[in-house]
Amino acid sequence: MKNIFLKVSYDGTNYCGWQKQNNAVSIQQTLEKAISNITREDTELIASGRTDSGVHALGQVCNFKTSSNIPSQKFAYAINSKLPKDIRVIESKEVDFSFNARFSAKKKTYMYRIYNSEMANPFYYKYSMQVAKKLDMDLMSKNVNMLIGTYDWTSFYTYETNNPKNPVRTIYSADISKNNDMITFEIEGNGFLYNMVRIIVGTLIDIGLHKNERDIKQIIEKKDRLYAGATAKPQGLFLKEVCYQ
Amino acid sequence: MKNIFLKVSYDGTNYCGWQKQNNAVSIQQTLEKAISNITREDTELIASGRTDSGVHALGQVCNFKTSSNIPSQKFAYAINSKLPKDIRVIESKEVDFSFNARFSAKKKTYMYRIYNSEMANPFYYKYSMQVAKKLDMDLMSKNVNMLIGTYDWTSFYTYETNNPKNPVRTIYSADISKNNDMITFEIEGNGFLYNMVRIIVGTLIDIGLHKNERDIKQIIEKKDRLYAGATAKPQGLFLKEVCYQ
Repeated sequence: MKNIFLKVSYDGTNYCGWQKQNNAVSIQQTLEKAISNITREDTELIASGRTDSGVHALGQVCNFKTSSNIPSQKFAYAINSKLPKDIRVIESKEVDFSFNARFSAKKKTYMYRIYNSEMANPFYYKYSMQVAKKLDMDLMSKNVNMLIGTYDWTSFYTYETNNPKNPVRTIYSADISKNNDMITFEIEGNGFLYNMVRIIVGTLIDIGLHKNERDIKQIIEKKDRLYAGATAKPQGLFLKEVCYQ
Repeated sequence: MKNIFLKVSYDGTNYCGWQKQNNAVSIQQTLEKAISNITREDTELIASGRTDSGVHALGQVCNFKTSSNIPSQKFAYAINSKLPKDIRVIESKEVDFSFNARFSAKKKTYMYRIYNSEMANPFYYKYSMQVAKKLDMDLMSKNVNMLIGTYDWTSFYTYETNNPKNPVRTIYSADISKNNDMITFEIEGNGFLYNMVRIIVGTLIDIGLHKNERDIKQIIEKKDRLYAGATAKPQGLFLKEVCYQ
């Protein structure tokens, strides 16, 4: 038995998200089917975390165990030959048997794209959230800096029955920049609560539109979801990278 | 009666191209339906030219005549409210009654994107042509410069019964550049024959792979389609701009 690490990139538009569901096509199910097709075994994939419907990945990581004697590096090519074009395995390698894509993850980086233009763009609507009114980039930048540090993020996640008990996470870096009408936000942390990045972005948008007079620091201190903004749309979110060391 | 000019951007992936067809959905038909929905009139759209199935447009231009009293600049918003998200009218204005999007066009600019990477990318496959082997950019650049001028382009178009009799066209500028793995080719001319840009790109790719020992100048001189390369895939092609003065 070998433990195989996969780095995967996908356009989440046509999927119900990472996780298997009964009445919809998921990334996980599509990948497991392609792998089983190659290995002739049942496949159980473990991912670094779920992504929601419409959310994209540049570097999702997952792993599975197999008795197949396909060389580890060749798995990427073999699996890709069985996948639709909107999912690509960009790397495959053998890792230590103890490696678990979810529990071994040390850092994650997410990217969120905001298209700040009055006019919608047919090439961007699946890969960004459009905000028609001009956003105050200076004010947003100041607030992005307030995200860095170790905090209780209770104001910034969606309650679920299986939420982790501890809402403390550390953000190592956060950055926002603008290129023409496209704003790119990047955030790196040791972990993220459910919808945390999208709620942070929704709050930054409210701040950038001068619709929330509190700053990020004050909203963190409230420890109450009501003070943060709406959850920003899934199509602007990209899981960029997962680090394991 | 007014003559309305529209500038339109579209993702051509899900359409059979600009022109109306019996068994498939075209950009033209989708736009005419949206306009008729607003004006309550039959609509006949004239475009600067057709685009083929899968080809995109950043700035296609078309015009139609109407008795509607909707202010000309408001047409863009009104039509967009009736269109799918992959087609957007980005400008509308009234023009002289003699304006004809096809016959008044003086210059056109096309862009073609080549994704030069061994690994396919789930975000690029609808918006570029992938070439796995490394292309010789220096050699391609030299050949791109040979495109500029007034020539008989017989080597570079697909024969059709309704082809224009005169295969002479003037290319004002042509440029190729690379950013990471994405190569962008741009070409501006007074007009283009059927498939001309895609055949030029297919030929440049052969030259960049050292698979065609002739250069562009020599292939132009042959005046024979057999010496040029294959027609490059439609999904890499974008109609970027049409100029009328």
